[in-house]
Amino acid sequence: MSLSTRSEVSATLDEDNLAGSDAKICKAARVSTLGSAAAESGEARGLINYLMKNRHGSPFEHGQMSFLVHAPIFVAREFMRHRAGWSYNETSGRYSELEPVFYVPQRYRPLVQEGKAGEYNFVQGTDDQYGITRWEHEQAYRVAWSAYQRMLKAGVAREVARNVLPVGTFTAFYATCNPRSLMHFLGLRTKSDDAAFKSFPQEEIERVALDMEVAFSNAFPLTYEAFVSNGRVCP
Amino acid sequence: MSLSTRSEVSATLDEDNLAGSDAKICKAARVSTLGSAAAESGEARGLINYLMKNRHGSPFEHGQMSFLVHAPIFVAREFMRHRAGWSYNETSGRYSELEPVFYVPQRYRPLVQEGKAGEYNFVQGTDDQYGITRWEHEQAYRVAWSAYQRMLKAGVAREVARNVLPVGTFTAFYATCNPRSLMHFLGLRTKSDDAAFKSFPQEEIERVALDMEVAFSNAFPLTYEAFVSNGRVCP
Amino acid sequence: MSLSTRSEVSATLDEDNLAGSDAKICKAARVSTLGSAAAESGEARGLINYLMKNRHGSPFEHGQMSFLVHAPIFVAREFMRHRAGWSYNETSGRYSELEPVFYVPQRYRPLVQEGKAGEYNFVQGTDDQYGITRWEHEQAYRVAWSAYQRMLKAGVAREVARNVLPVGTFTAFYATCNPRSLMHFLGLRTKSDDAAFKSFPQEEIERVALDMEVAFSNAFPLTYEAFVSNGRVCP
Amino acid sequence: MSLSTRSEVSATLDEDNLAGSDAKICKAARVSTLGSAAAESGEARGLINYLMKNRHGSPFEHGQMSFLVHAPIFVAREFMRHRAGWSYNETSGRYSELEPVFYVPQRYRPLVQEGKAGEYNFVQGTDDQYGITRWEHEQAYRVAWSAYQRMLKAGVAREVARNVLPVGTFTAFYATCNPRSLMHFLGLRTKSDDAAFKSFPQEEIERVALDMEVAFSNAFPLTYEAFVSNGRVCP
Repeated sequence: MSLSTRSEVSATLDEDNLAGSDAKICKAARVSTLGSAAAESGEARGLINYLMKNRHGSPFEHGQMSFLVHAPIFVAREFMRHRAGWSYNETSGRYSELEPVFYVPQRYRPLVQEGKAGEYNFVQGTDDQYGITRWEHEQAYRVAWSAYQRMLKAGVAREVARNVLPVGTFTAFYATCNPRSLMHFLGLRTKSDDAAFKSFPQEEIERVALDMEVAFSNAFPLTYEAFVSNGRVCP
Repeated sequence: MSLSTRSEVSATLDEDNLAGSDAKICKAARVSTLGSAAAESGEARGLINYLMKNRHGSPFEHGQMSFLVHAPIFVAREFMRHRAGWSYNETSGRYSELEPVFYVPQRYRPLVQEGKAGEYNFVQGTDDQYGITRWEHEQAYRVAWSAYQRMLKAGVAREVARNVLPVGTFTAFYATCNPRSLMHFLGLRTKSDDAAFKSFPQEEIERVALDMEVAFSNAFPLTYEAFVSNGRVCP
Repeated sequence: MSLSTRSEVSATLDEDNLAGSDAKICKAARVSTLGSAAAESGEARGLINYLMKNRHGSPFEHGQMSFLVHAPIFVAREFMRHRAGWSYNETSGRYSELEPVFYVPQRYRPLVQEGKAGEYNFVQGTDDQYGITRWEHEQAYRVAWSAYQRMLKAGVAREVARNVLPVGTFTAFYATCNPRSLMHFLGLRTKSDDAAFKSFPQEEIERVALDMEVAFSNAFPLTYEAFVSNGRVCP
Repeated sequence: MSLSTRSEVSATLDEDNLAGSDAKICKAARVSTLGSAAAESGEARGLINYLMKNRHGSPFEHGQMSFLVHAPIFVAREFMRHRAGWSYNETSGRYSELEPVFYVPQRYRPLVQEGKAGEYNFVQGTDDQYGITRWEHEQAYRVAWSAYQRMLKAGVAREVARNVLPVGTFTAFYATCNPRSLMHFLGLRTKSDDAAFKSFPQEEIERVALDMEVAFSNAFPLTYEAFVSNGRVCP
């Protein structure tokens, strides 16, 4: 296969593996408060906003969203640090030969970091800086891929040969979460002026997160609305 | 409300909050082994059996089953010790008045424990023993319920008055899991001659577990088959 | 054994099963930012405050506190809903005969609940209300304990006889957590005017939590200081 | 800094961040079975073996071991898939410049994979195969490191420049677990003829695991003994 580069990352909802809804979240909450006025009289929007505002997080766990994510290894590494309420299956470099698809930033990707640790500001690079970045990525990827291929051809095991592949190599993984664990993820992996806490996500994982945020807002519109209006903090 | 006693416990699958299937488990597994012969050539039964046998547990997490459980508090206590891959919402004695429904064992419930700790054998009680059990349960429940009611009528908060209610009082909870966490639960909360490990579940939680096992075997027939044929051990 | 009542609940730190310190939290954080100015130049107080404020929660997981908790069953039930980063072992009513120690509120315990669900206000009860509460608790406990004893004497298994014991019965459990999971617990199970989020813990679990908070402030003083000054929100 | 290659991986126990012991595991178990003959009469070895054999896993969670791991990124990726009972902090390629240390297999590392997926056999490579492997690793690492350095010198942010670094680049992480989560890890990441289940760990993570196994056997000798004699299965 000939080597290709990509700047796009993506998370695609598996519509056939979706469970739950705003109504199911309300149902779970009502099991807890069976007979109480607050739960019975409130319609869904009010109840969900009440749960979010008062940090009653457990009803938001009774739903499932699964995503197929295509992103470079460095994104997968950051993503899979999310443990609670997350399940993963990723393409294995031991069991299969990886594909020659590599991540190269697009021109608009801010390349220069200013300020001190934890308060970095990213600003646009010059044409020269982008040119160097693009060139260095492409030639490093080509060299790595050739080395990988030559070792495979010499009969070296995939799990050894892949050592030379860069963290910019694309991988694919299937990630399953519930609305609560997804909100926790979104609160950390996106930034927003409306957020109660400032986050500094890396751009590439944020773009994956934004795909997931759109899918979430469609599948759980009232929960999403309450998430946003309560400072994007997971209850 | 007048007091009632029940011997039945139950777990009812919420069919509208179900996600996943044997096919989805295979799909997740195939993301991991993209391109490998083992995954591609195998049909679902073989692949699922292979995953189970070789302790590849992660593909079994991409599905959701939710149950509405009706059982006494002592069952809920044991049930909710299961943490990984489980979510719960239970009727709250703080936010709502509990209902006068109490658990009394049926005549066939073995009442007498023989042997030493961890190797108990349960045997049938005599008519006298059952009579005492039934009578003591009923009168203790009546006294507790009256005390609860009198405190509520005197204006005492529900969260204080409920102190006197026995662990045999029925509660309801909504429990959500994935196939992997469910198999772990079934391995511990049911007993079987086919099991690789001996379990000593209490009868009441086992009856709840058996309801769940039936629902599981319907929703994930090949996974269930592989679970049973591999010693009922969660991978 | 003759029946006794208690109003005290407690959590006692197991000093011999403690690991970690503010310094270890800094060490873990510095592994992540090896070589960065922020981590190297900052002394511990500044670094810990920085981590807390910017929601870098992971360094707070590298420590262990274990508590022996004595509290009624209804407290244990609420406590053990905390799953992530918590481990438990509790006295079993199946394997051992329970002890005749029961919870009765003290005179100062607010007994009357005003306001609507989720915004309850608790106010002091009258002497009459306290008298009724005390009397109803004591007689219900006596009846339950006698029924339990009579069934045990008749040869009925402990796991059946205990059905009649109230949720006000004292239990003991050994609970292990890390600083992060403890802070999450404290944020929900105590109330404070300084908190970023309002919590409505039940008084009995709050008293257990306050014991734990003291032990935490002694073992991890800088982490505790940062927890309090950042709104008692777990990062 | 000039580039260096290493074949060694390691996990070093942080002796100052250790908690728990065989005795503490027994203590936790005895809280559960207070008063029962089994727990009281048994000395530690018998009790621990009983717990392991009967899958009473919870007492094994009340302890802490922390390790500083030095290994290539591909090992870190596999390691951090362990979620339950594990905490991590890893050197960040966003916050710090990575070091030019890269993994190259030693001569004895089996290079050739035979058999079908999941039943691979690894056999020694020829001198030629090892020569190719070594040469391809070294030149790919040199090219990647130069590209990384040139981008950094051009003012490109670390989080962008690191894209070209291979998964064979060394990283460091601080990993904290409890005896139960460690046993689960060891059962999957080492292989042994005594094991109840066959595992196929990659050699590099197995070497890290073996360091951890030694530390575990020293800190929890009776627990380790029971783990081994019960088929290396985590209870």
